[in-house]
Amino acid sequence: MSDTTATTPRGREATRQRLLDAAAEVFAEVGLDATSVESVCERAGFTRGAFYSNFASKEEMFLELAASVARSRVAEVEARVTELAGEGTLEATPATAVALVERVLDLPGDDRLGVLLMSEIRIHALRNPAMAEAFLEQDRELGRNIARMIGDIARASGLRLALPQDQVAQLLLLVWEGTMTRAVMAGRDRLGARDEVQKSLAGVVPLLIAGSD
Amino acid sequence: MSDTTATTPRGREATRQRLLDAAAEVFAEVGLDATSVESVCERAGFTRGAFYSNFASKEEMFLELAASVARSRVAEVEARVTELAGEGTLEATPATAVALVERVLDLPGDDRLGVLLMSEIRIHALRNPAMAEAFLEQDRELGRNIARMIGDIARASGLRLALPQDQVAQLLLLVWEGTMTRAVMAGRDRLGARDEVQKSLAGVVPLLIAGSD
Repeated sequence: MSDTTATTPRGREATRQRLLDAAAEVFAEVGLDATSVESVCERAGFTRGAFYSNFASKEEMFLELAASVARSRVAEVEARVTELAGEGTLEATPATAVALVERVLDLPGDDRLGVLLMSEIRIHALRNPAMAEAFLEQDRELGRNIARMIGDIARASGLRLALPQDQVAQLLLLVWEGTMTRAVMAGRDRLGARDEVQKSLAGVVPLLIAGSD
Repeated sequence: MSDTTATTPRGREATRQRLLDAAAEVFAEVGLDATSVESVCERAGFTRGAFYSNFASKEEMFLELAASVARSRVAEVEARVTELAGEGTLEATPATAVALVERVLDLPGDDRLGVLLMSEIRIHALRNPAMAEAFLEQDRELGRNIARMIGDIARASGLRLALPQDQVAQLLLLVWEGTMTRAVMAGRDRLGARDEVQKSLAGVVPLLIAGSD
């Protein structure tokens, strides 16, 4: 369990990522409260020293994990939008907006970890003002990223929004998260959960596009 | 700590309610996991026997607490709607729908306990299929109650909905809960939280009313 790799920039980044991956694994098994710094280090094959030179605390690490999960989902959607734009299939009319959203969200990747993580971080944030501040800042950042993407998609597709893009982003995030949480709870597999989210969004997307009657 | 009152129907109901009230108090202080049957009984002034003759488990009691919190909020809204109908102030046009919603939701009562409770029950439900089933059933019941109320308000106000009432209910519940959770996290007091919810709903309500341009 040598930590010499942890001192170079690339080594440090790899150590950080291995700790985050290990934390995600342990968390998925036992939940946030039962995940100790010790268990994460053991899973990652590192010492406590390696942990604390990367993270101030377990809470900070979990916030970082949540942020990285959110960022990689956003990146997946952005990559998909770029792909569709390249294929020329990003145009839509109010009548085809729902189908466009389905194309955009036709992604691999399971959201179960993200749902579990955000739910548990949320209850800590509800009782811990410092954690709340960090959570809300991440939440705003995610909202900004989604709003920007929505603006890009609207422009590329030729659709006009019925609300400012930041409000559209807020609403879609709430619908997505609420539906995904219930799907995970109901034991849906990845595709079943995706279908439930599509169904929920299919109800609300037409309301968010100007000119859908 | 006599339990003789616990054997009559009225006494049994009073015991049950005292246990639920005590559980809400302890939960608000230390969270769901740290709330033991023992601590609830001690707070209520009852024995474990009194607890287990009312509830099969701690989890079942917390689900009952969550259900009773949700039901009393629904009852408050229904009473308010009846009050407004009696005053003749339940009519609205698409242009005044947001003001109507503000009047309906102008209620006393703090939602902090409900938000904390639902958040913590949710994470248990995400990892426990039996709890998930009970949670989802309560969630559907709440949705039905809200949908029925929305239908009543629409009829009484003369407004037409842009979506089926059950979808309107789902959407409003998600917006309400997401905004309320963030407000509690941000340390808003009761009125500050209510204002944030009103603001969020003001964005989405016009989309849900047919004929709002």
